Amino acid sequence: MMFYPDIRVVDCTIRDGGLTNDSYFDPAVVRAVYEAACGAGIDYVELGYRNNREMLAPQEFGPYRFCDEPVLRKAVEGVENPKGTKLAIMMDSHKSTVGDLMPKADSIVDLVRVATYVKDVDKAIALAQRAHELGYETTINIMAISAESSPFLDEALQQIEEETKALAVYIVDSYGALYSEEVHFLVEKFQMYIKTKEIGVHMHNNQQLAFANTIEGIIKGAKYLDGTLYGLGRGAGNCPTELLIGFLKNPKYDMLPLLDAVSRHILPLKQSIEWGYRVPYMLTGVRNLHPAESIRWMDSPEKHDLVKFYKHLEVDLE
Amino acid sequence: MMFYPDIRVVDCTIRDGGLTNDSYFDPAVVRAVYEAACGAGIDYVELGYRNNREMLAPQEFGPYRFCDEPVLRKAVEGVENPKGTKLAIMMDSHKSTVGDLMPKADSIVDLVRVATYVKDVDKAIALAQRAHELGYETTINIMAISAESSPFLDEALQQIEEETKALAVYIVDSYGALYSEEVHFLVEKFQMYIKTKEIGVHMHNNQQLAFANTIEGIIKGAKYLDGTLYGLGRGAGNCPTELLIGFLKNPKYDMLPLLDAVSRHILPLKQSIEWGYRVPYMLTGVRNLHPAESIRWMDSPEKHDLVKFYKHLEVDLE
Repeated sequence: MMFYPDIRVVDCTIRDGGLTNDSYFDPAVVRAVYEAACGAGIDYVELGYRNNREMLAPQEFGPYRFCDEPVLRKAVEGVENPKGTKLAIMMDSHKSTVGDLMPKADSIVDLVRVATYVKDVDKAIALAQRAHELGYETTINIMAISAESSPFLDEALQQIEEETKALAVYIVDSYGALYSEEVHFLVEKFQMYIKTKEIGVHMHNNQQLAFANTIEGIIKGAKYLDGTLYGLGRGAGNCPTELLIGFLKNPKYDMLPLLDAVSRHILPLKQSIEWGYRVPYMLTGVRNLHPAESIRWMDSPEKHDLVKFYKHLEVDLE
Repeated sequence: MMFYPDIRVVDCTIRDGGLTNDSYFDPAVVRAVYEAACGAGIDYVELGYRNNREMLAPQEFGPYRFCDEPVLRKAVEGVENPKGTKLAIMMDSHKSTVGDLMPKADSIVDLVRVATYVKDVDKAIALAQRAHELGYETTINIMAISAESSPFLDEALQQIEEETKALAVYIVDSYGALYSEEVHFLVEKFQMYIKTKEIGVHMHNNQQLAFANTIEGIIKGAKYLDGTLYGLGRGAGNCPTELLIGFLKNPKYDMLPLLDAVSRHILPLKQSIEWGYRVPYMLTGVRNLHPAESIRWMDSPEKHDLVKFYKHLEVDLE
């Protein structure tokens, strides 16, 4: 076989893309992305965050930041799902509570992905374990991995391995800072601790390396792979799902429904949302910084003054 | 040392970018790119093709397709060059003649890069050898490498090794088709034959892998690295020079002059030229096809109908 049958592709267009528009999507776009993922045989499709309304300012966010059960049911209602694409949501360990989950028997959600920083790993483990007990599949996604220092990351991995039933633990390159050798290093580090679960990769495109780093993850053994259609996502965006499907050889995947959704629903978003490679995002990636500063810069009238932004970052750091 | 002192960066913004606009550049842009490369300590800056006017329709191209000596002298006149950035031009083995070169003593050109398909390698060798005898540095750049079949490529490499004094032989991924494992394979194949010269890499971005594949080339030992500012180039474009400089650790390089040129001269080109990742370019890359078909599609009113283009490629192939 030219393909790994145990690879799982997670399309998180709506969830990660929701960071560009506070999760205000036209429901027709959400439905189209779900339909495309089902048609393409994508393993999981993530339709948003289930964050806690008391931990956010709920009036500032659209419905896909909370993913109430009726919202999800409406998005998927009547859509053909011949290949059994599963439904995922994300919960932030520091912005969600176990009370936000109902028993799996009452929900159409299959997979709960818990996003966390290393410092919040105990919250993440509690949330993932509760979700597991309620009947959900779970993953734990460790954000900002390029900024986590070794002893604490190692300890967190050991704890996740011992204390959870997560299907996978993710390397999340929130800053888009990693080079291939670092991806190899991190997958190997994860493999030292994670023996009963798979490893996942979620890459950002600040240095145009999101797809490349996803492939490097695959080469080292990562099995859960995140992408978004046309790379939609905050700042420089993500690994494009269509590129990933073009690379994987599993005949169950079909690129055409994805291209149809890109044509009709994602490219038109370019009129209201900006994402993709830009020099300011690259500069925070190279310096291993949170992209927030570059995103603010890209919203300013000085967005094209790249020299000024370069110097701005230098002053901040010294 | 964290860096390889024998790495050479070649900025080919004007030469490769000239494929987007038939080499019609405002001379102020050419001068600005030259100035930026000098300020940044880029090793070589390539200002265009020196093609033969009888082998093209000269009225269809701007001056940087021919790079007459006065045109080059005007572009660089009075520009400070404290780090000794050298001047390069490209000659196509099938569109240039030895008669297009004068003795090096009469020229400000330092490096002549001969681009060739494997089938034209004898022309390329003759051209490169004549350029060498006239006093120029030379490289031979093998185009469309992903479409060359093994026995002929091997033979060509052996011949180039034995019959030329080229400084480097390039892997040129014209189709943007290569994945990292293929880059590794090709660099190793080149190393089997190329013992007295360096290996170079020139990558295209159809699959968002141009920068990643350049890094993979470095990891395997390639020393001549091509980039263009903001990836300017035909179709999906190239490895962005600014990303490459962000990656390399040689303290002689300075990113700021490059960012200044991107801000003031390259980003404004977006108003008249389109380049960068687009699904049609990706699809020809994935299928290992010449990008011409996708470039024509992107010039058509149907450019956003990705499903139709996908099917169009399938019909053509079967």
